Amino acid sequence: MAFFLSQPELADQQIWVEPPPRVLTMEVGQHVGERVMLDGWLHQLRRMGGVNFLILRDRKGLLQIVLNDVSPLQHMLPESVLQVSGLVVAESRAQGGYELHDANIEVISPVTEALPYSIHHPDVNVHLDTYLDHPIVGLRHPRQRAKLRLSAGLMAGFRTTLNELDFTEIQSPKLVGTATESGANVFEVDYFGRRAYLAQSPQFYKQMMTTVFERVYEVGPVFRAEPHDTTRHVNEYVSLDVEMAFIQDHRDVMAVVEKVIGGMIGYVSSHYAKELELLQASLPVLRLPFPAICFPDAQRLIFERWGEDCQREPDLAPQHERWLGQWASETYHNDFLFVTGYPMEKRPFYTHPQPSDPRYSNSFDLLFRGTELITGGQRLHRYQDYLAAAQARGIQPQVISGYLEAFRYGAAPHGGFAIGLERFIMQLLGLSNIREASLFPRDLNRITP
Amino acid sequence: MAFFLSQPELADQQIWVEPPPRVLTMEVGQHVGERVMLDGWLHQLRRMGGVNFLILRDRKGLLQIVLNDVSPLQHMLPESVLQVSGLVVAESRAQGGYELHDANIEVISPVTEALPYSIHHPDVNVHLDTYLDHPIVGLRHPRQRAKLRLSAGLMAGFRTTLNELDFTEIQSPKLVGTATESGANVFEVDYFGRRAYLAQSPQFYKQMMTTVFERVYEVGPVFRAEPHDTTRHVNEYVSLDVEMAFIQDHRDVMAVVEKVIGGMIGYVSSHYAKELELLQASLPVLRLPFPAICFPDAQRLIFERWGEDCQREPDLAPQHERWLGQWASETYHNDFLFVTGYPMEKRPFYTHPQPSDPRYSNSFDLLFRGTELITGGQRLHRYQDYLAAAQARGIQPQVISGYLEAFRYGAAPHGGFAIGLERFIMQLLGLSNIREASLFPRDLNRITP
Repeated sequence: MAFFLSQPELADQQIWVEPPPRVLTMEVGQHVGERVMLDGWLHQLRRMGGVNFLILRDRKGLLQIVLNDVSPLQHMLPESVLQVSGLVVAESRAQGGYELHDANIEVISPVTEALPYSIHHPDVNVHLDTYLDHPIVGLRHPRQRAKLRLSAGLMAGFRTTLNELDFTEIQSPKLVGTATESGANVFEVDYFGRRAYLAQSPQFYKQMMTTVFERVYEVGPVFRAEPHDTTRHVNEYVSLDVEMAFIQDHRDVMAVVEKVIGGMIGYVSSHYAKELELLQASLPVLRLPFPAICFPDAQRLIFERWGEDCQREPDLAPQHERWLGQWASETYHNDFLFVTGYPMEKRPFYTHPQPSDPRYSNSFDLLFRGTELITGGQRLHRYQDYLAAAQARGIQPQVISGYLEAFRYGAAPHGGFAIGLERFIMQLLGLSNIREASLFPRDLNRITP
Repeated sequence: MAFFLSQPELADQQIWVEPPPRVLTMEVGQHVGERVMLDGWLHQLRRMGGVNFLILRDRKGLLQIVLNDVSPLQHMLPESVLQVSGLVVAESRAQGGYELHDANIEVISPVTEALPYSIHHPDVNVHLDTYLDHPIVGLRHPRQRAKLRLSAGLMAGFRTTLNELDFTEIQSPKLVGTATESGANVFEVDYFGRRAYLAQSPQFYKQMMTTVFERVYEVGPVFRAEPHDTTRHVNEYVSLDVEMAFIQDHRDVMAVVEKVIGGMIGYVSSHYAKELELLQASLPVLRLPFPAICFPDAQRLIFERWGEDCQREPDLAPQHERWLGQWASETYHNDFLFVTGYPMEKRPFYTHPQPSDPRYSNSFDLLFRGTELITGGQRLHRYQDYLAAAQARGIQPQVISGYLEAFRYGAAPHGGFAIGLERFIMQLLGLSNIREASLFPRDLNRITP
């Protein structure tokens, strides 16, 4: 083999035959009348009378290939990996406007077993459980693939917006020694014979890091050991977290939420037009600023308009959020609505109270099409306030002493928010189950593959 | 409070007094002769004869403030959070060339306890254990902060380069049901009464995802339960992972490694010049392509040049890597060196053998300044090869059946590599301990904060 030399030499001096350049399915229009070489998967084989059509799939799309002779594909089942060369011909009846004639086919990886379900229909027509039993098959479906591509686009839009606002990216630890943020519902880990936990959120770390970088964000996994079995919950998901120092109150955080949502929607609309088209997704029209309603007013509105008296409840139920979303859509023609000032009793101990009425908090939720997408707010920043808040909730300060040092040694007024990535995709695309927005969802029943 | 309206209205209609705009320390040069307002931390208070100097630190840098009256800072210890307004004056003797006169100071968050160690010296002059006992103090040191900023820059350069090469970002699960990749050394998790594990790497998932997106990358945590206690190992770190389909062999992967390393170095050199200057870091000069030597030749070279016969060993020891790095530096004036074709016996079961000599593999390491930075190579892609390889290593195929479905249902020739982020920072800056490159390092002794 030429690469293994008897004397050490530079890599570029080695004998190395360049393979013919690969053309992608979406690029064939630039090569009409030429012979090109493509790589991809046997998406579908259609025998129509005397003519056979092979649909080849690569990372960019599909291409129709006219086959006079199907003998090279005998015994080749869908998803076989092929190298195809042929002549590019404009053909208005073909999807995309081009097809390949006079094709030569070489099988790179043969598939000899039938798929557990077919993926060449316009939709993934299979029960979700069957899909999830074989995710690596279903993820290849062009629509399913487009959903996860959008997910990558939302992450890129999130980071791009925050980098422009001078935020610094962090990666906080997921293995943590204490799990007091919400007490229960954390996964336990055997850490060299000691008990550790999986982080439910980077909350403590992002707050601490505001005393270093002032403005931080993180994209990473979070773990929730809640034994839910719903269409809206998974036990591991991707959280997009933001935290910033030197705010006046939660309204400064809300202003960043608006920029971030605008940046994410803007990014996918300009970079992922093909995926949005395939999914027939309707992006929300961005009308800034987002309308806002305070919690007591929201409850009053629900009572006056829908007759349900929830004014003694400390939180909104999903139906309440749907009503408020409907109201925002009708009143402001806006898919987004801030609800501000939730009661303190349902918020975590680090929540900053309203200075004018400490029963309520400097917090907010952002509803998107009638479902909570973002939770955020201002946090306490003075050490003495933390000691009092911890005591009031029965948290021993020494258990979270490392976290409290951030405040003991000087923290600025700060706040932040978190977005669940899969939840955002679910609401953006109107999916009926969050598992469709996750690569390999983890739930009560699934921990593999 | 004005924000809580009796009638729901748009947020921008609310009464809201805009605070005076904050100026950052690095921006004062644009305001000479003006009064400005700054926020930040009390970095240091210096009493020099009759004059007092307050050094204020914000996310961008430091600013000297001349104080005639220190009474507002009585009892205020370092790291108190301050709002300072004053007149900007050009002063060549001040660091940065400007200082603030006629200052008014408001204490936002007082610090009343002395720091466990001071952070205003040019270096963090403290034992590493003391530093790690109070990381949120040490991370505020400008040099320490710069290291972690560079870490963010390397991630951004990694993603930018791969986005340009049409790679798709993925986020694979960290909670996994099987842990066969290297058998032992995985953390166990109690998953609703069942046993699960923390992913040692996204290896299986990134390979599977090449059958969906062809080219994928991931930035995320990995977990190693190795009971090491060395300067080069932590038990949780950030892995930068890449995997790509339709390669000829590992050399196509090496070509992407070169682009990625070039992109990362280029990104930090153009976006993080201030941090590099503060750290007096010397970035490697990029000479592409990187030189390459195959494993048997490397062993022969070590024997001929340094007299150590390691030709029957299946791997290189750290000292061997240092010698090879020294040789690459002298011979090619290059900080980087590829070593290719490691013996199969020390590589994982999914490794692709050399077609010409199956005792060796289509794999490589990239040495950076004499230490392994990257491991990568071509993987098997045919289902039958996986069944044989699993059997040879005593792995039951049904245990990894979800992973194997990717190959059973058609995978292309593929390969990839992984970079340890903290390791890269450590080697780039010549740090003596990898813990200096991690926000909150996890090791045998540390799981908090």
